[in-house]
Amino acid sequence: MNSVLRILPILNIGEVSPGADLGTLIFDAIQASDLAIEPGDIFVITQKIVSKAEGRIVNLDDVQPSEFAQAFARQNNKDARHVEVVLRESRRIVRMDRGVLIAETRHGFICANAGVDESNVNGAQQLTLLPVDPDGSARALRRRLQEVAGEPDNLDVAVIISDTWGRPWRTGQVNMAIGVAGMAPIIDYRGQLDPYGYEMHASMIAVADELAAAAELVMGKIDRVPAAIIRGYDYTPDTGDGRALLRDASTDMFR
Amino acid sequence: MNSVLRILPILNIGEVSPGADLGTLIFDAIQASDLAIEPGDIFVITQKIVSKAEGRIVNLDDVQPSEFAQAFARQNNKDARHVEVVLRESRRIVRMDRGVLIAETRHGFICANAGVDESNVNGAQQLTLLPVDPDGSARALRRRLQEVAGEPDNLDVAVIISDTWGRPWRTGQVNMAIGVAGMAPIIDYRGQLDPYGYEMHASMIAVADELAAAAELVMGKIDRVPAAIIRGYDYTPDTGDGRALLRDASTDMFR
Repeated sequence: MNSVLRILPILNIGEVSPGADLGTLIFDAIQASDLAIEPGDIFVITQKIVSKAEGRIVNLDDVQPSEFAQAFARQNNKDARHVEVVLRESRRIVRMDRGVLIAETRHGFICANAGVDESNVNGAQQLTLLPVDPDGSARALRRRLQEVAGEPDNLDVAVIISDTWGRPWRTGQVNMAIGVAGMAPIIDYRGQLDPYGYEMHASMIAVADELAAAAELVMGKIDRVPAAIIRGYDYTPDTGDGRALLRDASTDMFR
Repeated sequence: MNSVLRILPILNIGEVSPGADLGTLIFDAIQASDLAIEPGDIFVITQKIVSKAEGRIVNLDDVQPSEFAQAFARQNNKDARHVEVVLRESRRIVRMDRGVLIAETRHGFICANAGVDESNVNGAQQLTLLPVDPDGSARALRRRLQEVAGEPDNLDVAVIISDTWGRPWRTGQVNMAIGVAGMAPIIDYRGQLDPYGYEMHASMIAVADELAAAAELVMGKIDRVPAAIIRGYDYTPDTGDGRALLRDASTDMFR
């Protein structure tokens, strides 16, 4: 656990189009940088390129906004078609105020605009949606990376799909994990004793979120580095997925 | 920005007592590991040892709980003295439900139990409080590190004091920055254009929180690694402080 951890940006992945084979694009970019996949590598991939590869793109011109979307857009100087897409991605609105839509997505994520994003797609006329099943996307990408690396059955790597979200109470956005494959997203220290023999009560560390946040540091936002490798983190291999990071409504006081 | 980022645990800092010279303890631990401080290093230090060095420790036996604290403790099977200390550290209770106290601290942080912590102090009879002024603590520690490194005026390093907090909506806790010195805690991309020339609207990245989260990955919780160096992150030197990470109440829909 306590060795040096390294975070390597994966450069030159290039433009990702619908239907792209992301595993191959990533593998080729790694090889072009004279790197290789190593056992224990964690791949953090931004949602944006996963969504693009999966064709989760909406042309604004194709959207017919509802009256509800139009009213909210009018009051808040928004594009009604954008609001409409956000509503379609939502199963519940958590806050709808001051022009901000905090939504619970159909996956159960709570975030601004249900994860619908208008940046970094060709022109201003397109929106990207979150993957339909980010954990499934992470699992598929992990399998594909194992395949292209030539070890389809036993290459021990993990994949985290990340997105950049704001938080209540704190300024600014951070990367969080929305899909996880190959590793336990949470380390549960409950019941373990600290060095004084005192039981630790509430220590479940959301390491997948911390790994996603760490990867953002080499990605930047303008520089278009949509993926990174974290090397040297001794994760717990697991079939667990990112849904474990969703707080159960019964223990959540802010929804 | 896009070079490899490394995170090095600072091992063998040892026990920290009230009045300890944290800068020297850290410097000695670094040297004992055959490392040296390098320009551009970011030191992430857990709140726990900062609070201990500053004597922010309360003996439970010295606490006289108020009736309010006693009532809440009774209802929720808590130690009334602990509840009392949490209330004293709070300027406002955000949620008080199901035995959980989410408080706004006198600094303006919103977190469980106002940051009062009962783990990792000698025996179960002590609590640690957050530093009185975490940004001041970060600045003082930064100056001290510059001094002990022999470059009191021009060693370009940054210091982040971190604590481990839960979040609404998501399971588990992550490290966040509560005090910052020597670097801009937020990168503001607003107004910049993405690669398609499309203006990015809402991209303020809380890099200090991401750095704190990243450092936690080499700290663990049981292993007692209370500090780490992040090397290779091209931060923006700045006199800014961690208060910039506190969302203004007027833009916060969850307090």
